[in-house]
Amino acid sequence: MGAKKKIAYLGPPGTFTEEALDKFIKDISQIKKISYPTVVEVIKSVDRGEADEGLVPIENSIEGSVNITQDILTFESEAKIIGEVTIPVKHSLIGRKKIGLENIKKVISHPHATAQCRKFLSTNLREAEIIAANSTAEAVKILKKENNDIAAIGTKIAAKIYKLEIIESDIEDNKDNKTRFVFIGNRIQPKTGEDKTSIVCFLKEDRPGSLYNILKEFAQRNINLTRLESRPAKKDLGDYVFMIDLDGHLHDKNIFEAIEVLRKSVYMVKILGSYPKWIESNKK
Amino acid sequence: MGAKKKIAYLGPPGTFTEEALDKFIKDISQIKKISYPTVVEVIKSVDRGEADEGLVPIENSIEGSVNITQDILTFESEAKIIGEVTIPVKHSLIGRKKIGLENIKKVISHPHATAQCRKFLSTNLREAEIIAANSTAEAVKILKKENNDIAAIGTKIAAKIYKLEIIESDIEDNKDNKTRFVFIGNRIQPKTGEDKTSIVCFLKEDRPGSLYNILKEFAQRNINLTRLESRPAKKDLGDYVFMIDLDGHLHDKNIFEAIEVLRKSVYMVKILGSYPKWIESNKK
Repeated sequence: MGAKKKIAYLGPPGTFTEEALDKFIKDISQIKKISYPTVVEVIKSVDRGEADEGLVPIENSIEGSVNITQDILTFESEAKIIGEVTIPVKHSLIGRKKIGLENIKKVISHPHATAQCRKFLSTNLREAEIIAANSTAEAVKILKKENNDIAAIGTKIAAKIYKLEIIESDIEDNKDNKTRFVFIGNRIQPKTGEDKTSIVCFLKEDRPGSLYNILKEFAQRNINLTRLESRPAKKDLGDYVFMIDLDGHLHDKNIFEAIEVLRKSVYMVKILGSYPKWIESNKK
Repeated sequence: MGAKKKIAYLGPPGTFTEEALDKFIKDISQIKKISYPTVVEVIKSVDRGEADEGLVPIENSIEGSVNITQDILTFESEAKIIGEVTIPVKHSLIGRKKIGLENIKKVISHPHATAQCRKFLSTNLREAEIIAANSTAEAVKILKKENNDIAAIGTKIAAKIYKLEIIESDIEDNKDNKTRFVFIGNRIQPKTGEDKTSIVCFLKEDRPGSLYNILKEFAQRNINLTRLESRPAKKDLGDYVFMIDLDGHLHDKNIFEAIEVLRKSVYMVKILGSYPKWIESNKK
């Protein structure tokens, strides 16, 4: 048997990213997980060859800025997206002991997690002091060293890792909230028939119709866009970038053609990747 | 003289939001600033009539999720955007005393601020422990009670408020980084000739060309889009929402017509506001 595949992920252990990794990988014993403290370091570990693949949040994340993932992939790395996985954002209130809510004096978590549980907190823990942590996993870890009247908002996997108690499950305001994660690697994945392609278009000017003209190339070829976002660019690389996710693979004739036409009309097109679409039934 | 206009903002005192407020308001003595701890509470204070206007970050913020501002305005409030202001994101390393970088053992800030200064931190403060706070202003405030070997990343205004020292200025990685803030109120602003309009389109299905067809209405009428973002919607309000910023005013004939046409083809259009465009020379 060869060496285990090394997969870098946004740590510390117990993050939603680790939960997503465990959900995606059919046999976790076949891989070596490596935790990195930031999104940048996960992506750079792949660029440097330290890890074979990396997993980072890209949309609707609570463990760090989504923008940072898109910016690093767009401006600072040649790594490609080779897969995606989406998991529901489920928050738990975690304590050292299973105590009543009325006994909780402080709540610690990442500011995004506390923001996502604001209704629960304002209804049940109105008087509690809100303390910030760098990640939900860090919050749970800190709890180990604290008093019984402090609770953390975090994942069930983190409560398990640190041998703590779940005081209340599913305390998030929005039950439909999901986070999308992407696997990073060094290749364009082969076509499976259920694929997605992520590209970035760099534009040197902001004119009426410039975005429309880009979309026309896809609409005319019956290509469905699943996500689109315009962002200011780093100045020397155009004035605007459009981040686009498409249904289909780069090797599909209509998609390849649309991109070839775009290359002539915009400043630059960067392919972030073509990869199998996440389908809920893929789950273990 | 009547009562002073009450303006709610995302606090605590010393945030970038307060800096933006001071920059926008010509005569700060004519208003009463009210600090609220969350974006939601700022917007709701306007909905409840506690404040006349509110100021919150909406794009590229470091003091809380941008998504929360858009989501509250889209799904949970009838407040309108009545103005905008953009300021550069300038971070300072702040200490109790002006000590050398080699003497700093811990750095405290909001996770977004530490992410935005990662190059500075990894070059100059590689060994320092990174501690999280709920806002940069909270980080600076906490510093007051700490030892001299702890530094905070925050605004100059916060250093001034808490009578602390600037150890190093402009430590952010990206010198072009800006945050856009919006004023919230209860009206569509009158036309000035240099305006912007923000709308949200709700779509019940995700088809090839659906976004393209929306943009066609604007392109054909020579209306420039300055920002576009597709997001998943809350389920009972359509499957996707498109957040669009346009150059021009709702009362411009071409914009009004384009929106009227859209109302027939999408599930719902919500007007978030028409308001004077922020022009850098507006600054005091």
